[in-house]
Order: sequence, then C-alpha cells, then structure tokens
Amino acid sequence: MTARRAYRTEVVPIALTQGDPAGIGPELTLKAWLARHERHIPPFVALTDPMLLRRTAEHLGLAVPIAEVAPGAAIDAFVDVLPVVPLGLPVMAEAGRPDPGTAAATLASIDQAVALVRSGAASAVVTNPIAKRVLYAAGFRHPGHTEYLAALAATPGQAAPLPVMMLWSEALAVVPVTIHVPLRAVPDLLTTDLIVETGRIVARDLARRFGVAHPRLALAGLNPHAGEGGVLGREDDAVIAPAVERLCREGIDARGPSPADTLFHARARATYDAVLAMYHDQALVPIKTIAFDEAVNVTLGLPFVRTSPDHGTAFDIAGRGVARPDSLCAALVLAARLAANERQAGA
Amino acid sequence: MTARRAYRTEVVPIALTQGDPAGIGPELTLKAWLARHERHIPPFVALTDPMLLRRTAEHLGLAVPIAEVAPGAAIDAFVDVLPVVPLGLPVMAEAGRPDPGTAAATLASIDQAVALVRSGAASAVVTNPIAKRVLYAAGFRHPGHTEYLAALAATPGQAAPLPVMMLWSEALAVVPVTIHVPLRAVPDLLTTDLIVETGRIVARDLARRFGVAHPRLALAGLNPHAGEGGVLGREDDAVIAPAVERLCREGIDARGPSPADTLFHARARATYDAVLAMYHDQALVPIKTIAFDEAVNVTLGLPFVRTSPDHGTAFDIAGRGVARPDSLCAALVLAARLAANERQAGA
Repeated sequence: MTARRAYRTEVVPIALTQGDPAGIGPELTLKAWLARHERHIPPFVALTDPMLLRRTAEHLGLAVPIAEVAPGAAIDAFVDVLPVVPLGLPVMAEAGRPDPGTAAATLASIDQAVALVRSGAASAVVTNPIAKRVLYAAGFRHPGHTEYLAALAATPGQAAPLPVMMLWSEALAVVPVTIHVPLRAVPDLLTTDLIVETGRIVARDLARRFGVAHPRLALAGLNPHAGEGGVLGREDDAVIAPAVERLCREGIDARGPSPADTLFHARARATYDAVLAMYHDQALVPIKTIAFDEAVNVTLGLPFVRTSPDHGTAFDIAGRGVARPDSLCAALVLAARLAANERQAGA
Repeated sequence: MTARRAYRTEVVPIALTQGDPAGIGPELTLKAWLARHERHIPPFVALTDPMLLRRTAEHLGLAVPIAEVAPGAAIDAFVDVLPVVPLGLPVMAEAGRPDPGTAAATLASIDQAVALVRSGAASAVVTNPIAKRVLYAAGFRHPGHTEYLAALAATPGQAAPLPVMMLWSEALAVVPVTIHVPLRAVPDLLTTDLIVETGRIVARDLARRFGVAHPRLALAGLNPHAGEGGVLGREDDAVIAPAVERLCREGIDARGPSPADTLFHARARATYDAVLAMYHDQALVPIKTIAFDEAVNVTLGLPFVRTSPDHGTAFDIAGRGVARPDSLCAALVLAARLAANERQAGA
C-alpha cells in the first residue's frame, strides 16, 4: 500500500543506473519493468545504452519495448515502455564477461544519476551492481560504489559526507558500523566517535526518510554476551556504552550494548527501528537469514536517497535469464517511499 | 513423532540435574513434568532435594506430586509423579538469591547424573542452568559446566575428552569453534587443528547420535565475504580452507569456508546438517534469530548424551512463575532421541 501511494504521488522518476553491463543488471532492469504492475514498481528511467537493453531483451526473449525519453517524460511513458536516457556511449558487453572497456559508461551512468537527482529531475538514485575490480582495471580510484557517490555528493570545498550502509527489509533494518575490513581489525577500528556519528545519521534518516517520528536504536555488543561485565572483552563497556550514553544525551533513543544473539528474534525486533551492529557479519547474518531475497541496501547520510539491491553482479549467471529481480524491485519500491517521505517531511 | 517413539522405547530415565536452586531450574523441572503428555516429554528423574521441588510447587501453585524413587522405578512412576532421586543434602535456597552454600548440592547433582548415565541407570544427562560465579565462590575450579562434565567423563589416567558445544533446533544446528572469548582473541585462537578436531567430533556425533548417515558440514568464513580472496583477511584461505581439505581427505563431507551471511537462509539450510561457525555470535545470532525459545545446547564429544536448555539461571525472574520451559522441554526430547539413536547404532 505504501508503494502504491508512492507510485501515485511520484512527480519525477527514479534514476536507475546501468551497473556493470556484463552482470545481471540489464536483465534485472528489464524484469523490474515487467513487474511494474504486479509489484507496484515506481516509474524509473534507466541510464544506459538503449541497445544494450534491446539486445538483452532479445537474447532472453523478454517483450520489453524500450524508448529514449527525456527524464521529464518518463513518468507518463513508463506504463507502456521502459524509458531510457542514453549515455551517449555505446556499450558493447557480453553477459558474464566483464571488460574494463565498459568502465567509462558504468561510471557515466552513476554521474548522470547523481546529476539528475541533484537537479530535481529524478527523485532518488537506485544503482545496479558494479564490479570494483573492473573499474580498478580502468583506473577508478575510489574505495567503492558508495564512496564514489559520497564524493559526487560533496559540496565543493567541503569534505564528502559520511555514507552509512543500512540493510533494510520489512522485518529488520541493520547498520554495520564497520564494514569491509578483516574481523581482526574491527576492535581497533571501533571508536565511540564513529559509533556516535553513525547513530546520529541513522536516527536522522530514519526520521526524515523512513517516517519514524522517534527512532529507536539498539546497539549490539562486540563480544559474546556483550562482554559479560568485562570478562569476555572490554570494548562493550569502554567504547560502546559511552556511545550509547552520548546518543541518549543528544536526545536519541539508543540502548545497549546488548548481547547480539538476543537482538534479532521476532519479539526483540518489535522493540527497535534499527540495530547498529559492530561489524559486517553481525549485521548481515541476521538480515540475510530472515530476508535473503528481499533485503535492500540503503545508503544513509547522502543528500539524496540511494538504494541498491543487496547482491553483486553475479557474472556466473548473467545472460541465463535466471536472475531474481526481487531485491532490485524492493530497492525501487523503497527508494520511492523514502523520497516521498522526505518530500513530505520537507513540505 | 520422533519424540513419541523415543518415549515408548525408553528403558531407563534421563537424569535431570538440579542446576542452581535459586534460579529457574526447579520451576522449569516442574513445568516440564506438567507438559509430559502435551509435549511428549520422555521420563526423567530429577536429582535434587525433593523438598526444594515441593516448596517451589507450593509457592507457584503448581499441582505436581513428587516422589522419591529409585532410578529403575522412574519410568513407571513418571506418568503419575515427578520422580526424584535425593542427593542426601538438604537444599535451602531462596528464588532469585544465589548462595554459595548451595554449591555442594549443585555439584553433587551433576556428579550423580554422570554416575547414573555411566552405569547405565540413566540414558542421558540433561542439565539445568548453573551460575559459575556462585560455584567459584564455593571453590569450584573448572572453567564451566561443560568442562566439569568432560572431567567427570575422563578415563582415569587419560586426558579429558574435548567437549564441543552445538546449538540445535529443528531448523538449524550450529557449532562455534571458539566460544566464550573476546572477539579480539578469536583470530589467533583459530587453528587448522582445532577446526579439524571439532569437525571430526561433529561428524561422528551427527552419525552416531543424530542418525545422519553422511553428515554434511558447512564451514563459515571468519571475515566478511570469507575474506574475498585475502583482500578482507587471510584466515579464511590460510587456516579454514586447509581444515576443510583435511576433513575431506578423511572422508568427511565438509565444504567452505563460505561467507557467513549466505549460510543461514532457508534454501542454504537445506544443503547441510550443521554449520561450524568460527566464533560465538556467528553461531548464536542465526539460531537465536530463527529459534529463540526452542534451541537446545548439546555437548558433543562426551561418552554420554548431554543436553541443556539454551539459557541461564535467570535469577531476575526466578520465583515469579513466568519462566518458559520450552528450551528444557526441547532438551529433554532431544536427549531421548539422541540416546535412542545411539542405542540403535550400537545394537
């Protein structure tokens, strides 16, 4: 119902990036458009080479009419055709065979999505998966997709905003405070400042984008039993507890640190709006256990709404027609909902 | 159905220890007996002071007839009364007020349970929760409940067996290779030898006690994405992968290391019989997310079957009548099933 409401009040389309053209992105884009009625997919415009989508549709036997349109015409066109804003770069890609020669178009699509959303011509950015090593081979120098978006979002002369990754599903939202680092590095990377700054961004975006008036944050402990009073590790008392106190002093409803294994069952989930987890698997294990196909990756802290499916390029199955569009569809629906909430909050 | 079958073929009772008498153990013991028909609880004999149970029943208004019986008479008596084998030590305990003065009886109950199961007068040991600090205050010198059982199980003159903790539910079984240690200590404690030895014990006990003819073990990676080829940590390739190879060379169906966040959704769970997780929360977060109330703690590697509820003494709610016996009931049912499987395998 929320999705339907978002659909009807949408005034500009979502900008959907191309992603790595040799991955499953083009196939998912076609399948998401085909599911537009059944899954209440909000209007989006694909930023890619229209011929890439036409070839993919033909190869997979998907009946998807594709039309080049201006972003302003995409909302009306969306019912009948998949609207595409061309990049001006032909993309020659073979499914399953990543090629650094396509990196320029992959990046141009992200650049254009950010330009559209910043100018008000798009409501949100949804990104198809990229492969970092393909971009690195072509000279890309950012740590990843999200950091590149943060750099594009920076006000000239100022530091880039801190992007915060949230994994979201209807049942659970989790935020890993540290992410793609070895487990061994986690305890020393965790600081009270980092946890507090992450908590502030989560609380702010839950309010302004998720429509949660008084967000409740649950902080997981780092150690077993949240350290059991220091017997099983000092960080829970020395680093996390002070962060909870500071967040509370700032008026944010934060609690913990709680033993992580008691935080994710159904009764516990009813008591908070998001969990701040201390490391990657502590966040991703529970959400992928209960919402493997439909979890969405949301980037908080940016000046625009950005979501993406919670999976990679899947080169191994690209071109075979078996990729599931569940997560991209959920990412599109959620992006529309977040953008609508933010519009409403700002109005 | 499995439980009912176990019930009918039981020839000797399960030995149920007292646990800390100020915790919820006495209440759970009474409630498990009351649930004997509804939940197909196998016959057990409580090793405790009968007066402790009588006082608890009276305090909570539970109609439970309690009778002192010899273990050999417990099976027949169980339908009508809760059979108790007295310890010969009166236990004066107040719910919620742990007291080192009760430690001798708590330990005597464990000693007697092991003696009964080793003599063949009991089929399995199920333990109610203890509080280590109460025992420590009375001079107890073992690291914990499980290590104490392992010491009792040792053949004189030989090293104690390596006890391996498994958390089990109908939906998922997990084994943490390291357990109650700070997260910071995990990477250096993980060795290929420890993982292999744990894997051997799990495979052997899945076969002889869980009736799994060809156990399939899935090993979780330590780092995000199982290290992603070393970019996110070296231990997955350097420590865990060699353990998988060694287990496979020994004829054990072991696979991995796999990214932990992909291992626990329903489709993944259908592909293995148990997961070897590398640390406490990696094992306990997924099982408590999907089976919070009914998970059972099983100790593998001992010369007898031992299970226990997956919770502590809960002094904070002891004496209030609100403790849920779900996990103790599941522990009793599973113990009977494992003992019956082992009997059958040995026959």
